[in-house]
Amino acid sequence: MKIYRINMSDLTVKAEDVPGEWQGLGGRALTSAIVAKEVEPACHPLGKKNKLVFAPGLLSGTAAPNSGRMSVGAKSPLTGGIKESNVGGTASQKLARLGIKAIIIEGLPDGTKYYNLHVDKNGIKIQEETELLGKGNYEVIDTLSKKLGDKTGVITIGQAGEYGLSSANISVKNPHGNIRSAGRGGLGAVMNSKRIKYITVDDTDGPGVSIADPEKFKQGVRVFADALKKHPVTGEGLPKFGTNVLINILNEAGGLPTRNFRMGRFEGAHKISGEFMYDTIIERKGKPTHTCHAGCVISCSQVYNDKDGNYVTAGFEYETIWGFGAVCYIDDLDIIAQADRICDDIGIDTIETAVAVAVAMEGGLLEFGDGQGMLGLLREIEKGTPLGRIIGNGASFTGKAFGVTRVPTVKDQAIPAYDPRAVKGIGVTYATTPMGADHTAGYSVATNILKVGGDISPLEKGGNVELSRDLQVATAAIDSAGLCLFVAFSMLDNPEAFQAVVDMLNAQYGLNLDADDINELGRSVLMTEREFNKAAGFTEKDDQLPEFFEEEVPPHNTTWDFTGEELQEVFNFK
Amino acid sequence: MKIYRINMSDLTVKAEDVPGEWQGLGGRALTSAIVAKEVEPACHPLGKKNKLVFAPGLLSGTAAPNSGRMSVGAKSPLTGGIKESNVGGTASQKLARLGIKAIIIEGLPDGTKYYNLHVDKNGIKIQEETELLGKGNYEVIDTLSKKLGDKTGVITIGQAGEYGLSSANISVKNPHGNIRSAGRGGLGAVMNSKRIKYITVDDTDGPGVSIADPEKFKQGVRVFADALKKHPVTGEGLPKFGTNVLINILNEAGGLPTRNFRMGRFEGAHKISGEFMYDTIIERKGKPTHTCHAGCVISCSQVYNDKDGNYVTAGFEYETIWGFGAVCYIDDLDIIAQADRICDDIGIDTIETAVAVAVAMEGGLLEFGDGQGMLGLLREIEKGTPLGRIIGNGASFTGKAFGVTRVPTVKDQAIPAYDPRAVKGIGVTYATTPMGADHTAGYSVATNILKVGGDISPLEKGGNVELSRDLQVATAAIDSAGLCLFVAFSMLDNPEAFQAVVDMLNAQYGLNLDADDINELGRSVLMTEREFNKAAGFTEKDDQLPEFFEEEVPPHNTTWDFTGEELQEVFNFK
Repeated sequence: MKIYRINMSDLTVKAEDVPGEWQGLGGRALTSAIVAKEVEPACHPLGKKNKLVFAPGLLSGTAAPNSGRMSVGAKSPLTGGIKESNVGGTASQKLARLGIKAIIIEGLPDGTKYYNLHVDKNGIKIQEETELLGKGNYEVIDTLSKKLGDKTGVITIGQAGEYGLSSANISVKNPHGNIRSAGRGGLGAVMNSKRIKYITVDDTDGPGVSIADPEKFKQGVRVFADALKKHPVTGEGLPKFGTNVLINILNEAGGLPTRNFRMGRFEGAHKISGEFMYDTIIERKGKPTHTCHAGCVISCSQVYNDKDGNYVTAGFEYETIWGFGAVCYIDDLDIIAQADRICDDIGIDTIETAVAVAVAMEGGLLEFGDGQGMLGLLREIEKGTPLGRIIGNGASFTGKAFGVTRVPTVKDQAIPAYDPRAVKGIGVTYATTPMGADHTAGYSVATNILKVGGDISPLEKGGNVELSRDLQVATAAIDSAGLCLFVAFSMLDNPEAFQAVVDMLNAQYGLNLDADDINELGRSVLMTEREFNKAAGFTEKDDQLPEFFEEEVPPHNTTWDFTGEELQEVFNFK
Repeated sequence: MKIYRINMSDLTVKAEDVPGEWQGLGGRALTSAIVAKEVEPACHPLGKKNKLVFAPGLLSGTAAPNSGRMSVGAKSPLTGGIKESNVGGTASQKLARLGIKAIIIEGLPDGTKYYNLHVDKNGIKIQEETELLGKGNYEVIDTLSKKLGDKTGVITIGQAGEYGLSSANISVKNPHGNIRSAGRGGLGAVMNSKRIKYITVDDTDGPGVSIADPEKFKQGVRVFADALKKHPVTGEGLPKFGTNVLINILNEAGGLPTRNFRMGRFEGAHKISGEFMYDTIIERKGKPTHTCHAGCVISCSQVYNDKDGNYVTAGFEYETIWGFGAVCYIDDLDIIAQADRICDDIGIDTIETAVAVAVAMEGGLLEFGDGQGMLGLLREIEKGTPLGRIIGNGASFTGKAFGVTRVPTVKDQAIPAYDPRAVKGIGVTYATTPMGADHTAGYSVATNILKVGGDISPLEKGGNVELSRDLQVATAAIDSAGLCLFVAFSMLDNPEAFQAVVDMLNAQYGLNLDADDINELGRSVLMTEREFNKAAGFTEKDDQLPEFFEEEVPPHNTTWDFTGEELQEVFNFK
């Protein structure tokens, strides 16, 4: 396999052998290792010293179920720290099958020209781009699919990226031509700083992925696929209702942040719930069950149509629906779907943007519950107006613009859809992960609320530091394998599923790893990321939730009560 | 003397005895000690845990020349660190003569009402304010002067403060009814967060300041006044040309940051110079020489009229003229004077705002040199539009809004009017002072360029760390005495002037301090401030200049070349 180094300063491409230290790495482990080694921690995230790294996971490109996640890494313009954001869609498997371990984009072009990259069996070409500048992601993907074929992978930025906004994401075409996003941390702004509008990937006649022990690999695939299908979360809840199954569950648990985190329950919850959404989709002849990448056996995605049966959006996730719903106090699923559509198209993180809108509501810019006003703000982002630039730079930025103190962020990244006072394990993750507030970095909701992998009270402190630690370690490993995070439900409950992942890795690479090695990989990723952040100027003071979480949140009337010392225990790996 | 504690949560006022540890402190030493002791370093600067502290200097209220500076302290919404900003005008002496050591404003009111404070011989009253909300500083001062008499001191915020902008300043009426500002670090937003529009001070029948040894004090006053009048900077340059005497000097030295810090010389410099300004003022029957507070023997302020002889602005400073001039590439002094007038009126820091405009120019919002466009941006701030909120939150914020990487700030505070590559001593101060980029925190320009207190090359590293250290220590002491910083020119060159300050302090307080004690006071202030910042999450990584100062600046083509280790030597007091 090769690492491709794209130098945008002199517009050159080099294919390099993979250094020994990186050969056992993929996905997040690799992007974080490269960023930590090659990027000056104190550099400007949009300057010439930052690098943007794409890496398929270790299992990507194989028949391993749900292994099509690609990691994108850089210093984040949102948090100022190291960032890994991963995404489904078609790119990861194609890159892996082309024998590409990683693509490192570095330098900055002189002048004002934009470029695109085309990746195929012959390598990578840098080409000047003019046609698709200023276009949204849907048009970019449609145009390129027509030009290069439906099967061509596309990685692109929308207008939010082109404006250099700190919430801009990187979007990836899914197998059906819809959009998946490496959503968090503003990596779209980094791609824009390199002046790359999009990357196309054609794996035709690529070398494919070699498997050291094909029989053993197949056996692992069978066991793993079975385990995913048998687990109630990945076999029933997610396929039927999508991730939005969580609205009713979190509302019931009192952990659904509502009206800018004032309450843990939303009276309009049922109108935006997964169950309501399922019925709506069926009625309008959408698709309740859809994959984000080939080889997914969970199919938590869906296609949501409007009242006339026309496509609105796909991959309509719980966190998005919570964001433009409960936290903004909006209970109209059609309006929320439009918001998701706009965000996908302009290429901006739905979580960050929804919370920014809620903070703007807090600042008096519009009323809580004003759905049309919210959509209007998204159109401001699309147009790049000053107001759009405020909202599009995220919740902390919006809070500062409007003098708001009730701003739910950690490391300047918006807190997602689980109230840390009512789901304390996830609060520990928000506070301590090197990524800034990120539920996917250690999804303690699984054990606190869904009772997967044990049962630790969401309302008490006890056990939650250890829970977050274990999950952060496991997640770093899963993100490195290129596996969808949802496989964790099964791996937590079923030792056979965990072993199947170890077996697939061993069979592919001819190794003899055991469970300890996997955990060691996860720990080492976290430590690499922590060290980068420390060198960038982060301290323990950055591992805290905002002041206002001292307030009680109904219905349980719990507060955020971890001390700084308690939180630092997350990184006491022993 | 008393400390007044204004609790805005329950609208109570308490007069407290001064604790022993604070009895020897005044001005910056006192505001920083109080903030460090009473404010949680990690708190939100606009939240209930921050406190706003006003303290006259140790010599304020006496006949000591140039002793009318008042310090204002808080955690800064701009830098996130501790902030002391000091200001002339009429407030400091009146507070001192009322026997007030400090006013501490804490808590936040419930509801949405605004208040004012009235300070007189009977204490402090909190009163509801409605009439002057939304008004600019000139109207506030005019209205209150009519209502309460011309001699009443006024401390106020303008619209920028009311919007909670991070560059909002706190303005103080000068003896002539014009405006002086505690400009830097957004303390106007903190005053607004406490919902206080203004504070009026009437010292009629106050107890006055007691002097332990009046004869010795008078002797010190005489020596000090003589020394100030004899020094060429404070006796000739500043009285005639104001601080704007520096435009030609810095331009000649190649250290006048031009076009967002691309060059060290500005071809339009003579059109905005002190010499040109002096001629213009004379021609238009303004006043070239004016005081900012009673007892000033330097008189560096001035009254600038328009072509028709109508008042435009007073206290028209070098840094303001540089900011709206050279750094924005504008060479029209009348336009710059209008900008100063608007900033004074809406209550916003001219340095931060001018650099924010330059950064917006860098981002393509308007052309460099577009004076009318610049004035238009200031009016956006006045109106509180989204664009105004962007610019009004400062240079770092503006840079992020427009995806600009060339952003001259340290700790998110804009770098002022001396290029750190061509005046290296001041660069050391920008990088290391706990205040964020602040020329007044250790004005190495004196020795680098004006050759006061020695001669250390501005273009070489050698000696500049030591220079900045010594000046930062001395400045912290001067700021604590309530003395105008310009007395330092004389104190650096003339041991008698230094001794006169020591003598006046000893005579007033009945003490036996020597020069070492003064330096020890300065060191202790700096350490207190550093500790606060550390506890707020600052590290050595924050003591750096931005990446782009690696570029050479013409005409000397020098770069910023201090290592982090070298800079940290500033705080190696031994």
